[in-house]
Parts: sequence; structure tokens; C-alpha cells
Amino acid sequence: VLPERLTRLVTLLSRLPGVGEKTAQRFVLYLVSQDAELPRRLAEELASLGTHLRPCERCGHIAEVGEPDLPVWCSICKDNKRDPRLLCVVARVQDLLAIERSAAMRGRYFVLGKLLSPLEGIGPEDLPLETLKRRLDEGEIAEVVVATPPSVDGEATALLLARELAKRNVRVSRIASGVPHGGDLEFADQITLGRAIEGRKELV
Amino acid sequence: VLPERLTRLVTLLSRLPGVGEKTAQRFVLYLVSQDAELPRRLAEELASLGTHLRPCERCGHIAEVGEPDLPVWCSICKDNKRDPRLLCVVARVQDLLAIERSAAMRGRYFVLGKLLSPLEGIGPEDLPLETLKRRLDEGEIAEVVVATPPSVDGEATALLLARELAKRNVRVSRIASGVPHGGDLEFADQITLGRAIEGRKELV
Repeated sequence: VLPERLTRLVTLLSRLPGVGEKTAQRFVLYLVSQDAELPRRLAEELASLGTHLRPCERCGHIAEVGEPDLPVWCSICKDNKRDPRLLCVVARVQDLLAIERSAAMRGRYFVLGKLLSPLEGIGPEDLPLETLKRRLDEGEIAEVVVATPPSVDGEATALLLARELAKRNVRVSRIASGVPHGGDLEFADQITLGRAIEGRKELV
Repeated sequence: VLPERLTRLVTLLSRLPGVGEKTAQRFVLYLVSQDAELPRRLAEELASLGTHLRPCERCGHIAEVGEPDLPVWCSICKDNKRDPRLLCVVARVQDLLAIERSAAMRGRYFVLGKLLSPLEGIGPEDLPLETLKRRLDEGEIAEVVVATPPSVDGEATALLLARELAKRNVRVSRIASGVPHGGDLEFADQITLGRAIEGRKELV
């Protein structure tokens, strides 16, 4: 009963996280019932996503693509006012954004992209440990703040990082568990996150 | 910390029904983390929405725009196998789709777009009553099945329609309200049970 192009759009939208077919259909019916401006602007922004945005080559955060011969660095990596001695390791870009909102991290970041997870078959070889070590080889970083979530996988990843970096001349700290166990950094409030960073403890 | 074009996309996506800023941000980060195929295809489909789809000029369902000089009619209005004597009045396109899935309506539809709602300031003058009456003036329709939801606003709208169409040579019926299929009497609310009993039908 629905035009085929609507069904195609519903299928595409239901690939978004947490969106099922019913929700996608609700989105599409809303988009059709609006004047053409919202779908048009959405289309424009989405079309430019792939060409203009890429992971930061240094930290994995989202970065805007600039001149073709320039390295793709995010705004935080480019920011000279950041403390070059502090490196905060997070699992996901969402976590980085949450910590930035707390304004408690003066340094830069390193986005792992995933956590150690025996259940999902994610082992140490799946984490960008070599990239992280090369970053440390640059010599400026004095402390690595491990801000993986206080979950089983997050703790396992923190311990792995502590072990991997143990022989280096760098402090490895862990954010305090002011964030409740099993909680998600993305949904923690700013004060909790701020306290967690201020109360970080040395791992080695 | 996020590139401005991402923030723009978050703002646009949070205009979708039931989507807040956090959810929109989750969508955007997912879209950026995927290969460029999903955003690109979404952009294409969205860009074509406004030019290819419009409300059916006859019933308000979604219709595909055809040749420029042809009226924009939906697939149901175009379908000659539909019973021309039956017209089912619904509040929203979603309700039309739900009824179509039940395969119990052989006739065509009329989408009101909204319900009478004193609380939201929606009065009779906000409903497309004149369009509905012009549709009945065509003379083929023998029965109007009012399928607005069994809520306060839905019942008020049904009563308004019954009153507005009373002087016409047309039957006006209302879909049955009662205990849903597979439902448990023990957990049905009082109003539902009351309606189920009032609407009882003779078995033999």
C-alpha cells in the first residue's frame, strides 16, 4: 500500500541504532507530512557526510577533511591549548564527547573504538594498541588516563592497557568509579564525570 | 568539539518524532562510523521524497507523483477492485496502514489528518469536513465506516462525523470496541469491558 520508495527509506532508516521498522515508518510518515524542507536539508547534510568527515588520523575522533595534502586531524588534536602531557583513552567517540562536556580533561584523547570482550570475541589484537604505543613514542605524554567504562569489558581493557604500558616511562591512571558500575559514560551527568576524572587513581 | 556540520545534522534529526538530542547524536555517530554507503543512500531517498511523494488529492494517503497533468491519486484510490460503496475514515496514515494489514476493509479511505481535540484547540473547522462531503457528493458511497481510535478525541470526532453526515443518504458506522483478540478479561480496563458488553452480538 505504500509507494516502493517509502519502503526503501523505511528499510534504510531501520538500520539506525535502536530503530525498528515501526519507528522507521513513523519517521518516514512524519517526513512526508512535513513540507519538503526537512527531508531536503537532511539529504544535503547526509550527502556531505562521507566526503567531509573522517576519523582523526591521530586519535580516532571525528575530524573534518581539509586540504587534500594536509593530515586529517580533529579540532582537539589541532588545539594548541591542550595539555600535551595528558592522554585520555576512551572506548567510543560518544564517551569523548561526554568527557568534553564535563570540561575536566585538559589533555587530548585516544579512541579505542572497541573494548576487550571475550564474549564477543574481541581480543587484544583487535585493539589499536600499536597506534597508541606509537603515539606514546612521540615522547610528550606523561600520563595516560584510562576512561573506559566501569563495566566488565571496560575494566578488562583498562587492565590490558596498564599491562601493555607498564614498561614505559608513563603514568597510567584510571578514572574513579564515581560513575556507577555498569553505567554508560554517555548518559552520566557532568558532575559525576568531572569527579571521576578528578579522582583518578594510579594503576601502576 | 564536534564539527559544525555534525551539529547541524543532529539538530535536523532531533525534529523527527520521539527523537531527542542524545538519540539524534547516536544516529549521527553511527552514520559517521559506517562506510559512506548508508548516508549516501539515505540522502538520495530523502532528496527524492519531496518531488516524488505527495498526499493523495482524493483521500490524503501518501501517493506517488506521476505525469504532471495527471491528478495525484494513491494506489488505493486508483485500485478498481476496491468496493466504491465503502469509505473508511481514519485519523492518520498509520491507521490506514494498520487496517490494510488486517485485510478487512474492501473499500477506500479518507484520512482526516487530525482528531477533534478541545484540549489542543482543534475544533470542527480544523477537520477536512468539506472535502469529505464533496467526496460523498460523488454519489457512489453507501457507507462511511468511522475508524477513529476509541479514545476521548476519537469518539468525539466519530460523533461529529455522525452528526455532520446525518442528513445524507449514507450509513455511518463505527468500528467495534471491546476486549482485543488474545486479550485477558482480567486485565482489560473497565471502559473496554463496558464497551465489550454493550457491543455484544447475538450468537444464535
